[in-house]
Amino acid sequence: MEKVKSVLRSKYVACLISPIVLNLLLIINNYVGVQWTLSRGWTSRAAAEAEAVAEISCSGHGIAYLDGLVGDGNEPVCECNTCYTGPDCSHFIPHCTVNADGGDPLFLEPFWIQHSTSSALVVSGWNRMSYTYSDHTFFSQQLESLIHKLHAFVGNAITQNRYIVFGAGSTQVLSAAAYALSLQNTTSQSPTRVVASIPYYPLYKNQMEYFNSEKFKFEGDAYTWKNRSDGSTNVIEFVTAPNNPDGRLNEAVLDGPNVKTIYDRAYYWPHFTPIQAPADEDLMVFTLSKLTGHAGSRFGWAVIKDETVFNRMVTHMHINSLGVSKDAQFRAFKLLKAVLEQGTGIFDFAYRTMKTRWERLAATLSSSNRLSLQKINPQYCSFYNEVREFSPAYAWLKCEREEDKDCYAVLKAANIIGRKEMCLVQKIIMFDSA
Amino acid sequence: MEKVKSVLRSKYVACLISPIVLNLLLIINNYVGVQWTLSRGWTSRAAAEAEAVAEISCSGHGIAYLDGLVGDGNEPVCECNTCYTGPDCSHFIPHCTVNADGGDPLFLEPFWIQHSTSSALVVSGWNRMSYTYSDHTFFSQQLESLIHKLHAFVGNAITQNRYIVFGAGSTQVLSAAAYALSLQNTTSQSPTRVVASIPYYPLYKNQMEYFNSEKFKFEGDAYTWKNRSDGSTNVIEFVTAPNNPDGRLNEAVLDGPNVKTIYDRAYYWPHFTPIQAPADEDLMVFTLSKLTGHAGSRFGWAVIKDETVFNRMVTHMHINSLGVSKDAQFRAFKLLKAVLEQGTGIFDFAYRTMKTRWERLAATLSSSNRLSLQKINPQYCSFYNEVREFSPAYAWLKCEREEDKDCYAVLKAANIIGRKEMCLVQKIIMFDSA
Repeated sequence: MEKVKSVLRSKYVACLISPIVLNLLLIINNYVGVQWTLSRGWTSRAAAEAEAVAEISCSGHGIAYLDGLVGDGNEPVCECNTCYTGPDCSHFIPHCTVNADGGDPLFLEPFWIQHSTSSALVVSGWNRMSYTYSDHTFFSQQLESLIHKLHAFVGNAITQNRYIVFGAGSTQVLSAAAYALSLQNTTSQSPTRVVASIPYYPLYKNQMEYFNSEKFKFEGDAYTWKNRSDGSTNVIEFVTAPNNPDGRLNEAVLDGPNVKTIYDRAYYWPHFTPIQAPADEDLMVFTLSKLTGHAGSRFGWAVIKDETVFNRMVTHMHINSLGVSKDAQFRAFKLLKAVLEQGTGIFDFAYRTMKTRWERLAATLSSSNRLSLQKINPQYCSFYNEVREFSPAYAWLKCEREEDKDCYAVLKAANIIGRKEMCLVQKIIMFDSA
Repeated sequence: MEKVKSVLRSKYVACLISPIVLNLLLIINNYVGVQWTLSRGWTSRAAAEAEAVAEISCSGHGIAYLDGLVGDGNEPVCECNTCYTGPDCSHFIPHCTVNADGGDPLFLEPFWIQHSTSSALVVSGWNRMSYTYSDHTFFSQQLESLIHKLHAFVGNAITQNRYIVFGAGSTQVLSAAAYALSLQNTTSQSPTRVVASIPYYPLYKNQMEYFNSEKFKFEGDAYTWKNRSDGSTNVIEFVTAPNNPDGRLNEAVLDGPNVKTIYDRAYYWPHFTPIQAPADEDLMVFTLSKLTGHAGSRFGWAVIKDETVFNRMVTHMHINSLGVSKDAQFRAFKLLKAVLEQGTGIFDFAYRTMKTRWERLAATLSSSNRLSLQKINPQYCSFYNEVREFSPAYAWLKCEREEDKDCYAVLKAANIIGRKEMCLVQKIIMFDSA
């Protein structure tokens, strides 16, 4: 009986207080200009933890994470960017070695910090536990629909009446495409010849050699095989446009009935290159990494014309990993929604950042007679409706002096790690979040 | 000037009101027994959306998702479990076909709905954008540390002084292991022979045949190769314990200097099988899917003794997908933290559920002279410190009548889809969230 009374009293108190609290919140929201929200739910503990860790200051040269480094009291502490150290990452490490052999797209971190509300994601414990979505596929139809909208908005690819398959970054999508196209090789006994024009992204070679399938064999430079088709051997050419590493809008070198082409369109976004026209190739590969900067999420996709090739790529994802993490898909969904909400916002921010960094790099190198930088002529960009400079993701450097045979070593001596395979230095300065 | 005044006035109002609001919240929290939290931050919009979608009632036979099906007004609507329909999934579909060719672990959904607060996850837009963690690996050390703690708590595997590698579900980990062990094959020109004892999980065969590497070849039943070693051919044996599909604690069939064994320990948790002793094999594979039920997250791991094998598996993850989604790793981190907070909670819940379903299934089949169910004798379980029945994830059925040559067809006629390759019916009744 006492308990019943207590419950009744509680309810009475609640009825009395709720309108007062809500009115006060309304007053605060209106007059103080800060958005206060009253949450009574299961999300409040996680929200408070996430907001607390976000408050930890790392001087703009690092971030503290809930699943990251912890201090003596098990509390999250700053994880500093390369070349910074100290409890709040404020200490610059002099003569620090710059690792330019990678393309970590951290230059977009500030954009997402600025758009924290629209990009925040809350995941319940019971969210998407099943292997599949309600249509029994591994791929979110809602996310696919956002991808269609985004390509239509940017005008960088035709996706209407095309199939879309997802993978763990473009990395998994690229090998899925190579498997799918080499399985089409039924007319020939010899393995499909896989090629790319030099300089190319080393992953193509690494994947083909590692997977070591009887169906395909990496055969190096596409130009070597031009006009040398024997008519019976099938060929897959990787065409990277814009190219990793030199930023050029590559076109296919080989053609003919036995040639299939995989267009790696990872960098075909207005912040890296002028968009000339919507790409409309048979098989195009994109990745979240170079669009929103979320390399860690591992989310990429292919846009495909042929249904059989699409089905084979779905099979690849099935056998390789039973599809793509639903958590990565949910994150991509939220991020792409935020991108679309902002209109040209992310592209404006990213282009500005890349252009500024490129100009600084070009200015620095212009006074050098030892190193020179690639030069690509400006082109008309349909997205911005004007002629625009390229602002590539990587610097493709040339050692001009006769005695500098080993360009990698030249850079190494200046504390810069380039890409060894090709005497390339990637423009890490563009990808530094500092 | 007016603006400055307004700001000053706002601050004055805030100072005045804040203590009142906080006191009122304190009163509500104490007297009403509901946890109210005041959030002013960037998480509030996402939290409100997540709480709102969680409030949509789907009668316990479905769930509404933020990235899922939407109604005419673009609002999230229920996605119903198999055999249920209607706006709130309350309508049972009579004579509905049960698909038992899978192991979707939805029976754990209610556990996570009960533990919503401890398992909720908030992800900021700028969370883990990099390819790597601060130690330049693809794998979260905090998550690895939780995995060590969990195995020590359950006592199902020795993980001290072992290497741990992550993958996209056990699916990706299994093929990484096969690649890593077949690369050890340097003494022989012939491909490594990959085997498993019948009945085995069909994925082993499907993966080996699909990847089609020159280094390995799937050769079927392990028993066929017993005492037939030619001394020069290397062998990989997949040993699944408990076995998928028949629940038995399989042991290796083959041994010798040329034999490497991959122990698939996906089901070696106290809710499926008595834990006899901590497993301590050279290479053991586990998955979040069969532990917490999060199949959709695609997160698995291997526990490895040999450093070279570990390094090769890391290389596999690198070349295949540049590691595992940070979003999946963050989710796994949060879920395993919640599991450890609950002590034996999840195992108690899962065992109770599985045992009840198994007893119902066994009782139903005991009256049949047409179908019989596998029988495994109870064993001592070190986790519960008592002799326990098995409560396997799958039913391994036998058609007893001479004329029932096609057991798959017998089940099909009763609206049950089994696993065609092996006349197996998986115990879908256990994996139905209803």
